Amino acid sequence: MASDKIDSEEAVVAAFWAPLAAGFPGAFGLKDDCAAIAPEPGCDLVVTADAVIEGVHFFPGAMAHEIAWKALAVNVSDLVAKGATPFAYVMMIALPGAPERRWLAAFAEGLHRAQEKFGCRLIGGDTDRTPGPLSVSITAFGSVPAGCMVRRSTARAGDLVYVSGTIGDAALGLDHRRDVGLSAYYGRTDRFSKPVPPVALAPVLRHHVSAAMDISDGLVKDFRRLCGASGVGGRIEAKSVPLSEGALAVLIVEETSIERLITGGEDYEVLATVAPQHAADFEGAARTAGVSVTQIGVIKEAAHGVRVIDAAGKDLAFATTGWDHFAP
Amino acid sequence: MASDKIDSEEAVVAAFWAPLAAGFPGAFGLKDDCAAIAPEPGCDLVVTADAVIEGVHFFPGAMAHEIAWKALAVNVSDLVAKGATPFAYVMMIALPGAPERRWLAAFAEGLHRAQEKFGCRLIGGDTDRTPGPLSVSITAFGSVPAGCMVRRSTARAGDLVYVSGTIGDAALGLDHRRDVGLSAYYGRTDRFSKPVPPVALAPVLRHHVSAAMDISDGLVKDFRRLCGASGVGGRIEAKSVPLSEGALAVLIVEETSIERLITGGEDYEVLATVAPQHAADFEGAARTAGVSVTQIGVIKEAAHGVRVIDAAGKDLAFATTGWDHFAP
Repeated sequence: MASDKIDSEEAVVAAFWAPLAAGFPGAFGLKDDCAAIAPEPGCDLVVTADAVIEGVHFFPGAMAHEIAWKALAVNVSDLVAKGATPFAYVMMIALPGAPERRWLAAFAEGLHRAQEKFGCRLIGGDTDRTPGPLSVSITAFGSVPAGCMVRRSTARAGDLVYVSGTIGDAALGLDHRRDVGLSAYYGRTDRFSKPVPPVALAPVLRHHVSAAMDISDGLVKDFRRLCGASGVGGRIEAKSVPLSEGALAVLIVEETSIERLITGGEDYEVLATVAPQHAADFEGAARTAGVSVTQIGVIKEAAHGVRVIDAAGKDLAFATTGWDHFAP
Repeated sequence: MASDKIDSEEAVVAAFWAPLAAGFPGAFGLKDDCAAIAPEPGCDLVVTADAVIEGVHFFPGAMAHEIAWKALAVNVSDLVAKGATPFAYVMMIALPGAPERRWLAAFAEGLHRAQEKFGCRLIGGDTDRTPGPLSVSITAFGSVPAGCMVRRSTARAGDLVYVSGTIGDAALGLDHRRDVGLSAYYGRTDRFSKPVPPVALAPVLRHHVSAAMDISDGLVKDFRRLCGASGVGGRIEAKSVPLSEGALAVLIVEETSIERLITGGEDYEVLATVAPQHAADFEGAARTAGVSVTQIGVIKEAAHGVRVIDAAGKDLAFATTGWDHFAP
């Protein structure tokens, strides 16, 4: 019977990572030192890099397949919001202690499901041991027609503001993990541990939006970033922010607040701005792609500031607008 | 006066990382979520990923600029050995505790020097805090004419075996750090903390060699890997392995052994195989590129095995052939 411990990096790669590279010729079965990407003619390669660390981005003891899914999903989310179609990624994983077959198999299965869902293949990486916590650092690659990467700095006054999907479900998922005594509605969504960025929206974005970014650190914070990068102001109507049935239920019984939902982060949905004359085409194309999009506000001149308006028409104020690693 | 602590990830990126992206349009000044690479027509993109972790790949308390240099150099080393010309990289850095300006400035200066030396630019990444040790995970990009990435699996019986530079200096540097009482010869080389992969050799390799890889885990171990991947055997003559003056001096006074030098690892030189009829051209082109290369052995049929022969013509045996993270 095979030991549950594995004694070489090459054995880990061959048993668990190499199957994830099947079908990508330039990955060379993960048997060489580098991968080769043959870019499609007329396309740019879009690149993003995000790490997830135990105790920072996921709870200690989180399930291996969930960690794997999330590590890939947060990167895919960035690509999608830039209008790029994901196709490959490399992974650097730092394992605390000797890796166990069962854990590695579950992790690889999570990666497998995520890459099938998102349409990409593992093409290389690095497997290390660390005296610290588990960390998974992924660099992901997408493709866009040359010069067509969607930027966050190109929103214009008068553009309409949209989000994909629903907002706040990950925040509720996080709250539920921290306090399982909370109402059962919290448990309805598993968006904190299993975000699903809307890959089908990528081609829609590159044809129809003026600017976009993904929502990772909270809708309010990321909206401010988009406005700041574009040198504009803007307004979000809190009552227009799309909520899941679960979130709405929790909000109604006042176990959470709209402030919590729109600043909680980890939504991994898309925030986009669309010129009014393209709004109908954008909405139609999103519908055809099977992705719900909702108009939640409008871009204004910079002098307007960046504001969130409640149902009574008053400005909402926030103690914190979202997540920052380095906040005091 | 500015505080020595920094309180936002964006401030770290703007102050320390963004200057390293200057001159690469698709990095967008590190102000967007992704970078865009416009591939040269007719070229493949070569991708590699390697992390360095405090306490694993460098000593706790190592100097910031040395850590930065090494983190980039180990990636450049992989690209160069594949015949790829480095041009860009992304970096995911996990910082223990709040980052200090002085440390970040020294780290950025080390990256700056390394990227000037190696000809590449920072184009993106992720800056996190970690409850664990400092880790720096880099994914680096190089360019080769389409289909021309040099492989490790394409050596043929009869090929000559070459290495670039000198072997064993990093092992001596490591020994010296562990025991400063060792002779002053050890201190002559700083190849453990500051490896310098031979970037100028990349175009020479893609024109003249049959197979190549970089030497990171020890010459003997990596030679075995190359032979294994190529399905061949091979022989290295230990007396032919090029040594620096410092290494030779330590060897003569018997403070180290040839076994230590050729299994120590972290050389970040190139191991290459060359068909005999191309050897003169390869040596000439390497000379023109200003990189020393030395023939140290020959590729044999698989039945010959992989052997290292001492000055007396006897087989050398090794307790360990090189470094493995997961060795028991």
